[in-house]
Amino acid sequence: MPLFDFPLDELRAYRPEPDEPQDFDAFWDRTSEVADRHPLDVRLTPQPGHLGLVDVWDVRFAGWNGDPINAWLIAPAGASRVGCVVTYIGYHGGRGFPHQHLRWPVAGWATLVVDTRGQGASASASSGVTGDPHGSEFGHAPGMLTKGILDPDEYYYRRVFTDAARAVDVAASLDIVDESRIVVSGHSQGGGIAQAVSALRPGVAAALVNEPFLCHFRRSCEIASTGPYPELVAFLGAQRDLEQRVFATLSYFEGMSFASRAQAPALYSVALMDTTCPPSTVFAAYNRWAGPKDIEVWPWNGHSGGEGYHAQRQLEWLSERFGTG
Amino acid sequence: MPLFDFPLDELRAYRPEPDEPQDFDAFWDRTSEVADRHPLDVRLTPQPGHLGLVDVWDVRFAGWNGDPINAWLIAPAGASRVGCVVTYIGYHGGRGFPHQHLRWPVAGWATLVVDTRGQGASASASSGVTGDPHGSEFGHAPGMLTKGILDPDEYYYRRVFTDAARAVDVAASLDIVDESRIVVSGHSQGGGIAQAVSALRPGVAAALVNEPFLCHFRRSCEIASTGPYPELVAFLGAQRDLEQRVFATLSYFEGMSFASRAQAPALYSVALMDTTCPPSTVFAAYNRWAGPKDIEVWPWNGHSGGEGYHAQRQLEWLSERFGTG
Amino acid sequence: MPLFDFPLDELRAYRPEPDEPQDFDAFWDRTSEVADRHPLDVRLTPQPGHLGLVDVWDVRFAGWNGDPINAWLIAPAGASRVGCVVTYIGYHGGRGFPHQHLRWPVAGWATLVVDTRGQGASASASSGVTGDPHGSEFGHAPGMLTKGILDPDEYYYRRVFTDAARAVDVAASLDIVDESRIVVSGHSQGGGIAQAVSALRPGVAAALVNEPFLCHFRRSCEIASTGPYPELVAFLGAQRDLEQRVFATLSYFEGMSFASRAQAPALYSVALMDTTCPPSTVFAAYNRWAGPKDIEVWPWNGHSGGEGYHAQRQLEWLSERFGTG
Amino acid sequence: MPLFDFPLDELRAYRPEPDEPQDFDAFWDRTSEVADRHPLDVRLTPQPGHLGLVDVWDVRFAGWNGDPINAWLIAPAGASRVGCVVTYIGYHGGRGFPHQHLRWPVAGWATLVVDTRGQGASASASSGVTGDPHGSEFGHAPGMLTKGILDPDEYYYRRVFTDAARAVDVAASLDIVDESRIVVSGHSQGGGIAQAVSALRPGVAAALVNEPFLCHFRRSCEIASTGPYPELVAFLGAQRDLEQRVFATLSYFEGMSFASRAQAPALYSVALMDTTCPPSTVFAAYNRWAGPKDIEVWPWNGHSGGEGYHAQRQLEWLSERFGTG
Amino acid sequence: MPLFDFPLDELRAYRPEPDEPQDFDAFWDRTSEVADRHPLDVRLTPQPGHLGLVDVWDVRFAGWNGDPINAWLIAPAGASRVGCVVTYIGYHGGRGFPHQHLRWPVAGWATLVVDTRGQGASASASSGVTGDPHGSEFGHAPGMLTKGILDPDEYYYRRVFTDAARAVDVAASLDIVDESRIVVSGHSQGGGIAQAVSALRPGVAAALVNEPFLCHFRRSCEIASTGPYPELVAFLGAQRDLEQRVFATLSYFEGMSFASRAQAPALYSVALMDTTCPPSTVFAAYNRWAGPKDIEVWPWNGHSGGEGYHAQRQLEWLSERFGTG
Amino acid sequence: MPLFDFPLDELRAYRPEPDEPQDFDAFWDRTSEVADRHPLDVRLTPQPGHLGLVDVWDVRFAGWNGDPINAWLIAPAGASRVGCVVTYIGYHGGRGFPHQHLRWPVAGWATLVVDTRGQGASASASSGVTGDPHGSEFGHAPGMLTKGILDPDEYYYRRVFTDAARAVDVAASLDIVDESRIVVSGHSQGGGIAQAVSALRPGVAAALVNEPFLCHFRRSCEIASTGPYPELVAFLGAQRDLEQRVFATLSYFEGMSFASRAQAPALYSVALMDTTCPPSTVFAAYNRWAGPKDIEVWPWNGHSGGEGYHAQRQLEWLSERFGTG
Repeated sequence: MPLFDFPLDELRAYRPEPDEPQDFDAFWDRTSEVADRHPLDVRLTPQPGHLGLVDVWDVRFAGWNGDPINAWLIAPAGASRVGCVVTYIGYHGGRGFPHQHLRWPVAGWATLVVDTRGQGASASASSGVTGDPHGSEFGHAPGMLTKGILDPDEYYYRRVFTDAARAVDVAASLDIVDESRIVVSGHSQGGGIAQAVSALRPGVAAALVNEPFLCHFRRSCEIASTGPYPELVAFLGAQRDLEQRVFATLSYFEGMSFASRAQAPALYSVALMDTTCPPSTVFAAYNRWAGPKDIEVWPWNGHSGGEGYHAQRQLEWLSERFGTG
Repeated sequence: MPLFDFPLDELRAYRPEPDEPQDFDAFWDRTSEVADRHPLDVRLTPQPGHLGLVDVWDVRFAGWNGDPINAWLIAPAGASRVGCVVTYIGYHGGRGFPHQHLRWPVAGWATLVVDTRGQGASASASSGVTGDPHGSEFGHAPGMLTKGILDPDEYYYRRVFTDAARAVDVAASLDIVDESRIVVSGHSQGGGIAQAVSALRPGVAAALVNEPFLCHFRRSCEIASTGPYPELVAFLGAQRDLEQRVFATLSYFEGMSFASRAQAPALYSVALMDTTCPPSTVFAAYNRWAGPKDIEVWPWNGHSGGEGYHAQRQLEWLSERFGTG
Repeated sequence: MPLFDFPLDELRAYRPEPDEPQDFDAFWDRTSEVADRHPLDVRLTPQPGHLGLVDVWDVRFAGWNGDPINAWLIAPAGASRVGCVVTYIGYHGGRGFPHQHLRWPVAGWATLVVDTRGQGASASASSGVTGDPHGSEFGHAPGMLTKGILDPDEYYYRRVFTDAARAVDVAASLDIVDESRIVVSGHSQGGGIAQAVSALRPGVAAALVNEPFLCHFRRSCEIASTGPYPELVAFLGAQRDLEQRVFATLSYFEGMSFASRAQAPALYSVALMDTTCPPSTVFAAYNRWAGPKDIEVWPWNGHSGGEGYHAQRQLEWLSERFGTG
Repeated sequence: MPLFDFPLDELRAYRPEPDEPQDFDAFWDRTSEVADRHPLDVRLTPQPGHLGLVDVWDVRFAGWNGDPINAWLIAPAGASRVGCVVTYIGYHGGRGFPHQHLRWPVAGWATLVVDTRGQGASASASSGVTGDPHGSEFGHAPGMLTKGILDPDEYYYRRVFTDAARAVDVAASLDIVDESRIVVSGHSQGGGIAQAVSALRPGVAAALVNEPFLCHFRRSCEIASTGPYPELVAFLGAQRDLEQRVFATLSYFEGMSFASRAQAPALYSVALMDTTCPPSTVFAAYNRWAGPKDIEVWPWNGHSGGEGYHAQRQLEWLSERFGTG
Repeated sequence: MPLFDFPLDELRAYRPEPDEPQDFDAFWDRTSEVADRHPLDVRLTPQPGHLGLVDVWDVRFAGWNGDPINAWLIAPAGASRVGCVVTYIGYHGGRGFPHQHLRWPVAGWATLVVDTRGQGASASASSGVTGDPHGSEFGHAPGMLTKGILDPDEYYYRRVFTDAARAVDVAASLDIVDESRIVVSGHSQGGGIAQAVSALRPGVAAALVNEPFLCHFRRSCEIASTGPYPELVAFLGAQRDLEQRVFATLSYFEGMSFASRAQAPALYSVALMDTTCPPSTVFAAYNRWAGPKDIEVWPWNGHSGGEGYHAQRQLEWLSERFGTG
Repeated sequence: MPLFDFPLDELRAYRPEPDEPQDFDAFWDRTSEVADRHPLDVRLTPQPGHLGLVDVWDVRFAGWNGDPINAWLIAPAGASRVGCVVTYIGYHGGRGFPHQHLRWPVAGWATLVVDTRGQGASASASSGVTGDPHGSEFGHAPGMLTKGILDPDEYYYRRVFTDAARAVDVAASLDIVDESRIVVSGHSQGGGIAQAVSALRPGVAAALVNEPFLCHFRRSCEIASTGPYPELVAFLGAQRDLEQRVFATLSYFEGMSFASRAQAPALYSVALMDTTCPPSTVFAAYNRWAGPKDIEVWPWNGHSGGEGYHAQRQLEWLSERFGTG
């Protein structure tokens, strides 16, 4: 797994200009407005079980279009007004089981683990239960990355980012959560979502963004050799006359653009041998992040990045900022 | 690419019992009834172009739920009351370009080349323009094979088979077509569709079924190592408690069950080194085909089967039966 | 990933005879006696950190030859006389970080997570800190499986199984642990170790054995195509005149033999598409397990087996037996 | 499939100097002179069949050394004085079946589909029937690319290019063909042949050159990772003292040199992710093409390039120039 | 690399019936008669060099059709009337360098290392200098296995086996060789050739046959997944109507038929994990060998078999029989 | 296998600065001093056998710590005061059989073929019999490259280089050897060892260094995609906080540093498509070699380099210098 992207010193300085549409903010304002027509409709079902140190609720709320989105809420048993880490999931995965998400609760945080609509049905390690009840007026490549890609209004990630932003609203609405300490978090697709939500909900207290997906789409298509970006290449290689429309749609979902609108402090992670979310595409977003920021560089790892080491780093980083844990 | 399935003599005798639901026919009758609430609404747009020996129309008709389905109609220039080969497409592909479908017209047949909804956006050799405007209430594995798989009513192939059956109705409705000579045809997914349509529209004049997909699902999951069946394995391996529901749904879409209801003469093709649609799963359907039948066995080929040789064989077989070409 | 081993009904009945040496028990008695010359010398160092709901200790104890073995002890904060799940690690891995082992503590159990000597330095997801300060008088294939394989006294797993058995003694010695509720547990190599320890420490209260490694060595060499068994094939294929000595050594470490000596109730897990620890080799051991037993079969998974689903099943199974969690 | 060659703007300007031997033209004049000692000896055998809209002849003519070369002639039924597209085949393929070559006839052109000697016996999609009755005085790597490579006079492609040039003469000799509208055409090896023939028969009316093989041999050896160029690397890596002779021979067959001698208008195609005929090697030839020219760039495709899209583009391009179709 | 063929006890009893043509012997008699029209025309050129303990000659002799065949003759310096091991080379290889063939000379034997015509130009470890100056009237798959395969008279291995048999005549003609101690030897293709020569020159003193190629063609096509047999599958999969002719030709070159005609004592080698020359195809020939015989079974190796271990075994086996070395 | 490293002209000038510790020489002086406490204790056991032209001894001597190291001594029969080529083995291999090392003896040299401790038990072509009786206080990745890597005193290659240097002392002690003509030699790991020994025993008469391993560790980790360097990446990717210690240890074992201390004339070999020991890392060492030197560049080969061609070149190069052979 040799190095294949820019050297680290160039990565730290890499700052390509996103091809940002003039109505980027208008698009997301409009999106928010449409979404808000549906109340959050949060339903919590306590989950009896074997995990005595924590309380677990099955959460269902109304995402984009009022569609039902499933999540787990896990908190220290009897917690009150604790901070909450909202966790988004990597590509193909789902919320899985509560026992797979105990780190934050044991450290004194609540965590809201949010399904990604339409996913969670092929990754054996982490399953989900949330569908995407919207079809598309055009075909798409296997996977979700090109679903609805000919129109920003219909694009799959418009729904996903809206669900995710509303998950922050869900967290803020919960009695046990201190709404001033809501942190967004994720790896890969989850990191890309956390990045977007940081712009859409600028009041979040912090962002934990690991090897984020959905950044610098054009370069990612040109150099990523594993993971989901090749779905875009497959679409473009089949529908050869639609390149312009594809990248026009993607410009509304570009991680660099979201990062430049974020306010919260962020801890990023990047791996130099990551062929799925290549380091230059991660730095392209990180280098534009508008809030306070720090990044851990894992020079000898691929897409899995720092794993346990970075999780430890996150515990420390949050503790320094919020005194929890 | 060694042999991996039963020896040929066992294949010829292989006749496993499908796990057929009692209401199989009722399900499809009901499906047909629901579908028929939408008129066919066929729209033909003549396509000027460079292919002088044929006439080409862009066809759009109402499939399941009235959703728009796209197709090409290509016929000998000025043809009248010719037979029509309705062609269904392999997984991931689409109707492509008219110049890719000239064999039947040059042989004196019209051909109606039908998009498969939601596909055609990742196979570089053959693109489509038809979406599947239906989402699903649950996640699915990348690809279409598990979309809606928890409920026969919502399963993706319910819509596809209905579109395909209605394409036969479209062909029958055309002035230039002799409705007594409508032949259904396809390879892989296209063959699986043709097989289903042969049961749903028993009046078709013949079926050309090459290396059909969507047969003997359980065994296919157990032995197919390439192609789409592993999508089912991915789903089952992630959603470990849904196996029963999955196979219950699939039992309404089983190729063996359709084959046993077909009346028309059929020419099949099977390849003994086919790891995508393994030969035992093809013979499982073929051996149940209720009409007159013949099968070409390609002992040294994989999923592509007989290709040009079998296309030649098809020309001869149809000519013997219909005197065309 | 097609099925490649016996059908499930044959697996359930599969009961090959191990090639067990007459002095199998004598060998392990002697091993125990030699090991016992070194006191356990348990050292617990409390670990401050961010995981408030639990107490964490860095544990060091004397394994085989008095060599230092590292482990984590994690327990519900302030726990007293709780059951303890002793966890052994899969091949190449190590004890990692405490935050990676919270399931049992949150369910009310202590857990002792034990490094495997000499491993933990190549699996990015789980690192260890325990060396194997013993060399070997003969070369070995990359990996640990053939280290010292020409002599049962010098074989690597003699040291590992002894370390692991002593980890049970460590658990039993702890104030916070109820020694009547010590459970051994592991996946793959960890499952193979748990199986051996169940025989070496017949007083353990239960065993959780997932897709165990180190079973039915000869058949494993013949059919496993991934994972560590091919190390044995590499050794045998290089040192072509040592086959007899290799299998003679392995006969003292055979999972079937350990299973037949186990007394505790066991919950096994097996995956039918597991090419690393093939299902027939798992059933070969399971079918000989001498205590009460149950097995979960995951038909559509490879070596990772049931993952979260099985972890959930384990929580329930232990709860039924011990009323904890 | 990431980008691996120069960026597009550099490709458009890339113009390496071929290492052209002084007697390049003399070599080919002499070759032509030797070849001309054998009359063309064209034999047309009408093919009855099922393709009523076209006339088909099995064509046999004398290629290099008078060796029999097989082709299909396919033309609109009853055509007279139509243009003719001479089609050369990609590596390993053959002329296949007439029903596989209907695009040009349906568009009003005759087409002469020419076998490549010695090939057509391993590509399942397209078989040939023409041998290469010449051996070689030295071994060669599997495949044809290094057959006779130690001597330009004996090199395999001397015979192939001569056969191909004579195929143009065959077309010109046919009553049904308008000799002022003979177009040469091909993909990959077929494109390389068309390029060479454009120089050897400068009277051809146009050239359709898709992802041509046989260009910029040295760079191709250095960067192509798939397809036939690695045959050269295998030869050079085995016969380590023959590099100079190999490249000396190849200099008489260099696509850049042929391109710089071509007069006809050309439509090229190049794919930026083509690891078989890397884009820099295609542009190296294209940028030297001496006639009017145009190139379609397919940024997201591999060696298959534009496929149906480019075929459509070719129909339009020819129609603009010749008013046919 | 799991076991994939029959168990060893079945292999030892495996004795399929070859599909032997009635004129098998007549064919080879005729072949011999035609070949004998060309005198051997042996030319020896002493090779000065750095290998003082041996004498080396570059040998050239007339093979089939009088074509020049190259070989090395290497013998103990000043040897006289020593036995001679005639060595045939594995697929793609050539005679290489004299310093690569010192085992037999150092053991007191001369060795004649014979190029295989047309090969030796792609295996980096062993190059050759002998061409096959015969073409073929039909195409063939890359590699030599299908060259001329439509006609036994034109088939490539007719020439190769004849060259090889004449190499025995060359050895017998040499002053330094004791013609009563000529041994034929080879691995893979070389083993297949040695097997054939043992029948064609029944006077050879012994045969050393390692993992022979060219045995039980039909089964080899069905189960070999690596090496050259897949060339046959590629040919058959492309030229779908020629299966009968292909196997008819191969029946004259079947290793089982040659083995049943051999008289000399033989030492075979077979590897149970050999996917290139599967063990059942080796035993199919070995079990028919008509002379005294022994076989070494390497249970944990692939196609390379016993390598140095078997070479050692060969030294001992020959020494027992001939007292040399 | 495309080119992936610097162009040849840059390689010839490539001269990165090693990160050499100040006490590099002191470390090796100390190492030597410690090693010398154990006498060489050379034991020669004559080997009867079948190789009459040479004398063979099984050699055992005391390496690092007095550990037994095995070797073969092979010399022209009855030789006296001949030069001796000390041969070190590539990764995973061992001394194999005497009949595999006849080139130098036949050319008039003795050769001492030295096992590498702990290896020789997984490469089917060359087995060894020498263990590494030292364990490590920390885990290591499969293979030997990271064994003891946290401390230069404990690092595996400290023992290996010491064994290798003492093998030169063994050769010098032999009656049949002319101690003024001791040449060190090896490929890959063997080349890296020869390089180190050239510095540790500056009196050696020449060095033959083929595609040496253990050079320019950091760059090798960054660009090598095959072979053992990825073991380092695996270790660094698992033990993420130990990078500094790892490279600190490696700086005492850096090929560039050894090369700059060598005095003897050297013949190197490098292959431009070598992804195991990339050419820039070979030139990094070669360009620092302090003695007279020459390098053969194999432009079209991978890690196997020049093989027989280079062996021939070595025979000539040694003959020019020493008049032997």
